[in-house]
Amino acid sequence: MTDTTPWREIQRTTVFEKFGRAVDQVHFEMPDGQQEEFHLKRERPGAAVLALTPDRQVILARQYRPGPDRVLHELPGGVIDPGERAMDAIGRELLEETGYQGTITEAGSYWHDAYSTIRRYAFLATDCVRVAEPDPERTEFIDVVTLPLQEFRDRVLRRGAMTDTAAAYLALDRLRIL
Amino acid sequence: MTDTTPWREIQRTTVFEKFGRAVDQVHFEMPDGQQEEFHLKRERPGAAVLALTPDRQVILARQYRPGPDRVLHELPGGVIDPGERAMDAIGRELLEETGYQGTITEAGSYWHDAYSTIRRYAFLATDCVRVAEPDPERTEFIDVVTLPLQEFRDRVLRRGAMTDTAAAYLALDRLRIL
Repeated sequence: MTDTTPWREIQRTTVFEKFGRAVDQVHFEMPDGQQEEFHLKRERPGAAVLALTPDRQVILARQYRPGPDRVLHELPGGVIDPGERAMDAIGRELLEETGYQGTITEAGSYWHDAYSTIRRYAFLATDCVRVAEPDPERTEFIDVVTLPLQEFRDRVLRRGAMTDTAAAYLALDRLRIL
Repeated sequence: MTDTTPWREIQRTTVFEKFGRAVDQVHFEMPDGQQEEFHLKRERPGAAVLALTPDRQVILARQYRPGPDRVLHELPGGVIDPGERAMDAIGRELLEETGYQGTITEAGSYWHDAYSTIRRYAFLATDCVRVAEPDPERTEFIDVVTLPLQEFRDRVLRRGAMTDTAAAYLALDRLRIL
């Protein structure tokens, strides 16, 4: 049987750090005694929510995403502030980005990447109603759109036209309509 | 309606680059005319596969992951080499990491991160049989384990004890057993 024990960290140097994101160069001793250098991302945890109106429309934050370089139908969400609970973060983000509030339940969490520290938290929000105007941050340009759940699943989720695919599926799994 | 048109790239500087991974500092002009600096990851595309034996056991590559700093039950997969088709890459990775071969079908793809260029490709492999000894790379220490599909779903996927959650759900959706 292969030795899959955790590797031993020998040395760590931060080679890039800005706005809560960093890249560390880490030397590990692997199970066979060899040493190898890896570059690991240190990034803040995030949260995303599949938010539904009482008639099962999905509330989406349509916006330009600079990594994919495309306008995507995104789940509301964002970075969890230091010391903030994921559940509080997602309620805040949903309200700020869309103006909606609802009943929020946990839908699970997952590791985002084998070479990043990020853990992402998925939520389901039901019975969402619009209670305010959206109040986005200075760098957020968001169109709030709603799509029937089946249309969201067929046209956005299955086609990979978003970034928080795992969170959306965890929420659907939680809804037990998968 | 909010102006969600793509932002205009003003200037780009690579601040870190190694092993096919880079961080670019990019100045964008946003829809309201303001300029803002973002750090975007340039990373190579990847692929992962939900691989099933004829009796619906999931073939997993149990291994230490340095980002999460944990031993995880991972889907077989890896980076797509330049010029390589995603379908060829995943057949190669499945065989190298586990020694199994099967019938591979596309299960979709998705954007991994709002601040990264990565697109990840999901595959489903059915009727997998072991045809060779695993032949992992020098830095891969993998235990090949199989779990009944329902147990994988309950104990690994829903608990987020892996990194390729989105790929696993897309493959389950493709199987139409969700």
